[in-house]
Amino acid sequence: MAPNGDHPPTDFRHVFKIPTKGDLRRKTLQKSADLHSRPDDDETCVYLCGNSLGLQPTLTRQYLDQYLDTWATKGVFGHFTHINDSSLAPWMHVDDDLVEDMATIVGAKPSEVAVMQTLTVNLHLLMASFYKPTKERYKVILEGKAFPSDHYMVESQIQHHGLDPALSMILIEPPTDSGVLPTDHILSVIDRHADTTAVLLLPGVQFYTGQFLDMPRITTYAQDQGILVGWDLAHAVGNVPLQLSDWNVDFAAWCTYKYLNAGPGSIGGLYVNEKHFHRPRLAGWWGSSKSSRFDMTNRFEPIPSAAGFQLSNPSVADSTALRASLDIFKQTSMKALRAKSLELTGRLEVLLKQSEAKHLFSIITPGSKAERGAQLSIRLQPGLLDSVLVRLEEEGVVIDERKPDVIRVAPAPLYNNVEDVKAFVHVFGAACLEAAKTGK
Amino acid sequence: MAPNGDHPPTDFRHVFKIPTKGDLRRKTLQKSADLHSRPDDDETCVYLCGNSLGLQPTLTRQYLDQYLDTWATKGVFGHFTHINDSSLAPWMHVDDDLVEDMATIVGAKPSEVAVMQTLTVNLHLLMASFYKPTKERYKVILEGKAFPSDHYMVESQIQHHGLDPALSMILIEPPTDSGVLPTDHILSVIDRHADTTAVLLLPGVQFYTGQFLDMPRITTYAQDQGILVGWDLAHAVGNVPLQLSDWNVDFAAWCTYKYLNAGPGSIGGLYVNEKHFHRPRLAGWWGSSKSSRFDMTNRFEPIPSAAGFQLSNPSVADSTALRASLDIFKQTSMKALRAKSLELTGRLEVLLKQSEAKHLFSIITPGSKAERGAQLSIRLQPGLLDSVLVRLEEEGVVIDERKPDVIRVAPAPLYNNVEDVKAFVHVFGAACLEAAKTGK
Ligand SMILES: Cc1ncc(COP(=O)(O)O)c(C=O)c1O
Ligand SMILES: Cc1ncc(COP(=O)(O)O)c(C=O)c1O
Repeated sequence: MAPNGDHPPTDFRHVFKIPTKGDLRRKTLQKSADLHSRPDDDETCVYLCGNSLGLQPTLTRQYLDQYLDTWATKGVFGHFTHINDSSLAPWMHVDDDLVEDMATIVGAKPSEVAVMQTLTVNLHLLMASFYKPTKERYKVILEGKAFPSDHYMVESQIQHHGLDPALSMILIEPPTDSGVLPTDHILSVIDRHADTTAVLLLPGVQFYTGQFLDMPRITTYAQDQGILVGWDLAHAVGNVPLQLSDWNVDFAAWCTYKYLNAGPGSIGGLYVNEKHFHRPRLAGWWGSSKSSRFDMTNRFEPIPSAAGFQLSNPSVADSTALRASLDIFKQTSMKALRAKSLELTGRLEVLLKQSEAKHLFSIITPGSKAERGAQLSIRLQPGLLDSVLVRLEEEGVVIDERKPDVIRVAPAPLYNNVEDVKAFVHVFGAACLEAAKTGK
Repeated sequence: MAPNGDHPPTDFRHVFKIPTKGDLRRKTLQKSADLHSRPDDDETCVYLCGNSLGLQPTLTRQYLDQYLDTWATKGVFGHFTHINDSSLAPWMHVDDDLVEDMATIVGAKPSEVAVMQTLTVNLHLLMASFYKPTKERYKVILEGKAFPSDHYMVESQIQHHGLDPALSMILIEPPTDSGVLPTDHILSVIDRHADTTAVLLLPGVQFYTGQFLDMPRITTYAQDQGILVGWDLAHAVGNVPLQLSDWNVDFAAWCTYKYLNAGPGSIGGLYVNEKHFHRPRLAGWWGSSKSSRFDMTNRFEPIPSAAGFQLSNPSVADSTALRASLDIFKQTSMKALRAKSLELTGRLEVLLKQSEAKHLFSIITPGSKAERGAQLSIRLQPGLLDSVLVRLEEEGVVIDERKPDVIRVAPAPLYNNVEDVKAFVHVFGAACLEAAKTGK
């Protein structure tokens, strides 16, 4: 996929719904219902929060309308009927229809990718296939500051096997206050538990620090010691270039509501390396051969691909929203988006370092471009956060906070631009200075 | 919930999108794109397929539009912001917002119900909590003609524990050709395996025969012998009256795309009896206390209710579609709907038995009203099915077939009426006679 030769377009701002500042200030959907107004109400807001919830493609409503029209006019036949004036696949195939474009984004063979369920559930399902503790190998290594759901997931998987998390759950704690995990540090923990570890699970991009881990090196290193390696790609997918197949990752899972813009809680994705297609699994009819699925024979014939790990018929509404999103990604490439992303985030870093308020915060995300994605995480001096957040909100600048003192700022290459970055630094710097002055 | 005193309304046909016959014949969504037309193109079709996919409430599009407007104008703030001119809850609460109305439909305490994930996944998650095989009790009893996904689910759960389905999976086979499972037959299988069985899983309404099992009697009988009892309510929810709490069911799960009209693959539901709130589970952040969910402490504090079994943030699109559906159910009661349903299905049975073609088919669904829901399953004489299906489709009559010789016909009380039932019997009878005459 390299549409337009070597220079695919990367500016898709015009095909996204970017809230205006007035939209954000109103407590209503309708404009007319509003009383107060301000001169900048019609300006688009500065939305740097695609790491939490990506914005809505304009295509989404069009496609959901098509879906609703199909349901309204075809009823149950929507499952099988090919409709001439619809861009959508029959519901029976909506998930398959997404796989190729999704695989391109994560650098995988289409057969190794399935679009299904949600992130935490997919991690559980994958662990059910990959985490088979023995007397020799029973530990799971993950980070000590993992996203809570991943922590609970691993902890409960260990307990499910009757093992004790105190002995079997190995937490890699960041060696310094920044929260960053140096690769050597990760490898040293692997070394320490090499003989007793069954699975290593790490994030491609860490949610808090924005660190992009050295996925190929860590994968190979752990596999060489007999460990299976899985990745949580919630913050990596659609953000950084991934080559899951080349890196020989064992398994991975992700969500689609961040950089993939498929909407809150939308359908997730997973990767199973083809060498693992035969693994035991928790099975469901949607993973059984399509040709015999409706024969009702009760003989499970797993589809010989990641699709064989599917369980239920997928949400058509969510698959449709994801279709709208992937139709944008299709027009460009992760390589081109990454180039733009490095530029935007690089510019953000430079401007922050030049800010008059620079003594009031520090960037905890790694300074090396290879070690980060779109997001910079910024730690404020103690006591500043609350009033800085008030000011950012007043000015229509949307970022994401992690109490007590960190904000995460992520220019999404599909819809953000340099103006967003400048506007953020301008408002943020002033807000920090003001907060410091008023002593709060 | 008994709106309008003892006589809540039961005719909601006008708030559903019923395809016209022309809609079904066209291979397009747009009318204009069509060339051929027939005089009955604008008549509503005869849709008796709510057991497979329920029709779309007109509210669904309105609510999905509100959801898309919220995402477009509030971005990530949609998670928390209460919007004055929207009927929808902030996304953070969309699932909770559904629980009370869902609980009313299944006859449960709201604390015992969660709206989450999809059916097969929910069954796996429940089995992870409830199926804890020991040396003494390790079997799972289910029907031999279970819906394939349930069969694969149980089989793979047994294998997951390192056990052999040949020894641990007990299949209740129907004693006669009809496929119906007499209660005494079920109880006798329970008796045979009483000491070694951990879990009994049965369908509330059987998908193929339409039989409504004697849930309270079977539940109590099995529990008295120390067996945990779970129910697959895919075909029961929104169809027959359920009293999960009173019946002291241990657990249950269902989908929402059949009688609940929430759209293909929409979000599912589950029931956990309050006595089981403490059970171990496969955990995720969405099941951890709301107040500390974003503290990132990595201490799992399960919500002390069925919500504690949640894993991922829910699909807002699907939750929104379900909201539209439950806003209809709220205006009536399952008692009133059941009364109408008994009437419609009773009428269907009478008319079929009076049909001139009655020698060409038999009804396999139990004749007793207490033992069935909306659906009648009809077995045709060998060789008739294919041409009968062609004729039904031509006439805009939508039912569901199970090769080689069964059709399932389900008047849904919310939107079907006596005219639908009469029209079906009329077309079906003629189609059978014609098929028999032409020798195929
Ligand atoms: C009785 C029964 N069980 C399980 C399923 C599987 O449902 P899902 O694909 O939502 O997991 C169905 C689907 O129709 C069903 O009817
Ligand atoms: C890194 C990471 N893991 C897991 C999750 C949980 O996702 P879900 O609620 O879709 O299961 C998130 C959600 O933001 C996340 O960022």
